[in-house]
Amino acid sequence: MPRWEAGAQTRLTRAAYELYIERGFEHVTVAEIAERAGLTKRTFFRYFDDKREVLFSGAPAMQEAVVEAVATAPESVTPIDAVVAALAVAGSRITETGEGARARQRLIESSSDLQEREMIKMVALKEAIGGALQTRGVPESEAGLTAHAGVAVFQAAFERWAHTEDSADFPSLIFGALDDLRSAINPSARAESPHSPVAG
Amino acid sequence: MPRWEAGAQTRLTRAAYELYIERGFEHVTVAEIAERAGLTKRTFFRYFDDKREVLFSGAPAMQEAVVEAVATAPESVTPIDAVVAALAVAGSRITETGEGARARQRLIESSSDLQEREMIKMVALKEAIGGALQTRGVPESEAGLTAHAGVAVFQAAFERWAHTEDSADFPSLIFGALDDLRSAINPSARAESPHSPVAG
Repeated sequence: MPRWEAGAQTRLTRAAYELYIERGFEHVTVAEIAERAGLTKRTFFRYFDDKREVLFSGAPAMQEAVVEAVATAPESVTPIDAVVAALAVAGSRITETGEGARARQRLIESSSDLQEREMIKMVALKEAIGGALQTRGVPESEAGLTAHAGVAVFQAAFERWAHTEDSADFPSLIFGALDDLRSAINPSARAESPHSPVAG
Repeated sequence: MPRWEAGAQTRLTRAAYELYIERGFEHVTVAEIAERAGLTKRTFFRYFDDKREVLFSGAPAMQEAVVEAVATAPESVTPIDAVVAALAVAGSRITETGEGARARQRLIESSSDLQEREMIKMVALKEAIGGALQTRGVPESEAGLTAHAGVAVFQAAFERWAHTEDSADFPSLIFGALDDLRSAINPSARAESPHSPVAG
């Protein structure tokens, strides 16, 4: 008997999605997923810690790609531009799958357990981006705020993508969300805030 | 036997903090907390869902106060200013306790379980602020980004406060963090971004 079943992870993932969509995430057990995939529970647990993790198996590779892109962006690129460009690429890869990514998003929104797990992955991504910015020499506090802003616009762009049927590409959505964030926190609406040139 | 012990919640909270600091959060059981407080486990569970919740008992009142302040700020106040002002007040109340709040922060940072719980409370706060902004007529997407920015600067300000011994007041720290966020995401460093006046 082969120790690693060919394509086991793919079969388990497909079976899990099918069952979650058919019955609702809360009503599916690991045993049922394994059975649908023609595998054992034990095999399931070789690939996934629990039934939530099936939906997040791409997170480590996504995070690694973003961190790499931020860390190696040309020096002339500002921190926020490096972060948003990296997230634009990552988001494009995710949204390329079209209906698959939308189905995943609907599943996550259907379960507070999954939303919690998603939130934890997003905070981990933010921390990793902050670390990557620090390797570029960005001071810790600026790195943290820039990473936070990047994740905020990524989430805003992703929600817009997931909840509209139009085919706006992800980079347009995330750069649009960045402009929206800038407007939202812009002090220019207040008459008492003079525009002062940068000192130095 | 009285159904509600006088000051039970306060006694349990104090006992929990003492034990967490003495032994480390992971090594304390609910039974030990109850014993130190001279109460039963059953009484503990009347007030708290689990041993983590002792550290977050103030969260609902804090969230309610912030939502109320955002929802009732004068119409002339911009959304981001309403949010940051509300969080400045909330943060001032928390940091007023001085060493108590720092001890709590050190405990949270000592445990991934507690960090996770903190993260969940922060996301709930962000969602509630977004909802409060929508009651002011702010469109959903702008409300979400503004709330996210507010929570980001609140967290940045709180970390600065917790990790420095100086006595900078919380409002200065959070307004400083807001300015830092503006600089961090400002496109003005890029020569190719013309400063365009608002159309209208």
